Amino acid sequence: MKVKVIVTLKKSVLDPQGTVIKQALNGMGYNNVKDVRQGKFFEINIDEKDQKSAEEKTEEMCKKLLTNLVIEDYKIIETQ
Amino acid sequence: MKVKVIVTLKKSVLDPQGTVIKQALNGMGYNNVKDVRQGKFFEINIDEKDQKSAEEKTEEMCKKLLTNLVIEDYKIIETQ
Repeated sequence: MKVKVIVTLKKSVLDPQGTVIKQALNGMGYNNVKDVRQGKFFEINIDEKDQKSAEEKTEEMCKKLLTNLVIEDYKIIETQ
Repeated sequence: MKVKVIVTLKKSVLDPQGTVIKQALNGMGYNNVKDVRQGKFFEINIDEKDQKSAEEKTEEMCKKLLTNLVIEDYKIIETQ
C-alpha cells in the first residue's frame, strides 16, 4: 500500500522559509497572498495488505523518524 | 481561502533523499518499507472569495515559483 503523509510545523512555530516564499510571491505581484507555510510530504510504499496496519506502521515511523514532535505535526492524507 | 499544494519529483527522477529515509527505516526494523519518495508541501493563505480563482492563482504561482517543472509535478490537494 502507498501511504501519503504530510509533516507540517505546529501553528505556534515560526516558519521563516514560508515567510520568504510569501515575500517572493508578493514581490511578483501576488499581493493577495497573506501567508505561506511550508512542510514536507512523504509517500511511503509499504508491503502490507491491510490498510489499518499500514497506517499504524506509518504512524509509528512518523513518531520515530519522520517527525520532530516537539515542533511538527504529521497527518496521513491518503492510503491506497 | 487556504490552498494546500503538494510538489513531488516526477516518477522518472531519482530521489536520493527518499532512498536514505527508506534505508533508515529498513535499518530500524521496518523491512516491509519498499520505497519512500519525499516532496514538499505548501499551505497558501490567499485573500480570494472564489475557490476557482484561488486555485487558478495557485496554479500560476506553482508554475512560476514553487515548482521546477522540469523535474517536479504539483498537485492541489485541498482548498478551503
